[in-house]
Amino acid sequence: MPTLKEQGKNKVISRLLDAAAGVIKRSGVKIKAIGAGCPGPLDSKKGEILSPPNLPDWRGVRLKKIIERRFRIPAVVENDANCAGLGEAMSGAGRGSSSMVLLTLGTGIGSAIVLDGKLWTGKGGFASELGHVSIDYNGLKCGCGNRGCLEMYASATAVVRRRKAAGKMTAEDVYKAAEKGDKISRRIVDETAVYLGAAIANIINALDPETIVLAGGMSKAGKKFFYKVEKAAKERALKEASKGVRIVPAELGEDAGIIGAAWRAKNS
Amino acid sequence: MPTLKEQGKNKVISRLLDAAAGVIKRSGVKIKAIGAGCPGPLDSKKGEILSPPNLPDWRGVRLKKIIERRFRIPAVVENDANCAGLGEAMSGAGRGSSSMVLLTLGTGIGSAIVLDGKLWTGKGGFASELGHVSIDYNGLKCGCGNRGCLEMYASATAVVRRRKAAGKMTAEDVYKAAEKGDKISRRIVDETAVYLGAAIANIINALDPETIVLAGGMSKAGKKFFYKVEKAAKERALKEASKGVRIVPAELGEDAGIIGAAWRAKNS
Repeated sequence: MPTLKEQGKNKVISRLLDAAAGVIKRSGVKIKAIGAGCPGPLDSKKGEILSPPNLPDWRGVRLKKIIERRFRIPAVVENDANCAGLGEAMSGAGRGSSSMVLLTLGTGIGSAIVLDGKLWTGKGGFASELGHVSIDYNGLKCGCGNRGCLEMYASATAVVRRRKAAGKMTAEDVYKAAEKGDKISRRIVDETAVYLGAAIANIINALDPETIVLAGGMSKAGKKFFYKVEKAAKERALKEASKGVRIVPAELGEDAGIIGAAWRAKNS
Repeated sequence: MPTLKEQGKNKVISRLLDAAAGVIKRSGVKIKAIGAGCPGPLDSKKGEILSPPNLPDWRGVRLKKIIERRFRIPAVVENDANCAGLGEAMSGAGRGSSSMVLLTLGTGIGSAIVLDGKLWTGKGGFASELGHVSIDYNGLKCGCGNRGCLEMYASATAVVRRRKAAGKMTAEDVYKAAEKGDKISRRIVDETAVYLGAAIANIINALDPETIVLAGGMSKAGKKFFYKVEKAAKERALKEASKGVRIVPAELGEDAGIIGAAWRAKNS
């Protein structure tokens, strides 16, 4: 169901909890734990929302406690990109892999790192912000304060920004135009493949993962785009690590986060 | 003892094993396992050397088997940068940390990633090649085939290359000259701090580690250099993850690899 954030946090939360209660009742299944995926940054240990840019009034909400009080079973709160990554790793394009990195190319770039079947979340739960790993220390200024963040080059927003001369296009429009032979769109798509490939080469050299999963609108850009991303990544990465790495599209679509939140609750 | 690689692999290996046998005998200690640190790339699972650029005749040497045949106890072979990282993580500058990343700034840049007290080595043992993580997708061409590798900007070799006008200087000479007020040297040192800071910001945003350890000749460049690196890193990294991260010099010097190889054998 849609968030309808303009209703304010209290209404949104009680509507979501009511919906969950209804599903639990109708299913007849005994629920042992609840996992909730939320926009970050958040403190997963405490189950507290910190400062999500798109949900400013949620700052300080102790979602874990709220869920546990209502349902009287353990709850886990994890950031939504991590949930999507865990979902794809356990039940989607990464299943069977010893290690997987997810990049979700949307308005921004979400990402997750799953090592030995577990999310790597870092000392404070802030790891795997791969959209803010820079591909050019002297590159485009990003809203986060850094320069050259991948998000500034390969997110859907960045693709549309580079094609702005054409007016109101979406990233998918740019991909379709490129397929149909529009030269400017094709150049933008090819550049995007190189940016993404350079970032993926860095991921390969740093982590030597078994599988890299690309999700989000841009992952639907077609086989040709995937092939170009893979080519750029393997040309740049060290031979030993790039041998055998799988670069594949996500499988679970918008369900990835829901499935991953459930895994996160199961494994905690 | 020095490797004396010009003697060829057979002589070098038997000299090393004789030395180890002598130490074991004199110590009177019962040894349960042996850990050996070697230049990579190598296959740690098989204990086989693959293709170390500086030891070409070692290709295909099954060092694990050779050690086990001689001493009749289990042996582990791990790449030397990983051994140094594990040493610093367990007994050096990273002890007590839940996660640590080591960067050794020498002729090249060696590195290691230690997560939850264990080396992260990836699907094939080729992870943590952070010297070949690029800080500029369109930057200087590296011998590995990629562009903009950190090694091309922040290794001792890169520092000396940029100061080449001055003739035969070492990286330490450049640092000393900068301290004494030489303007060109100071600019090079300041640039190096920014390159390193940009790379460390990427590590922080990707892995949110508790401690980052800098080792090698350049880590002796003094407190001012460390301060500049830390400043550049924290200016660029996301606030949440950079809060509380420790950036510290290595403690174990050249013993890091020996101590880490022992830990690697103990933990396997």
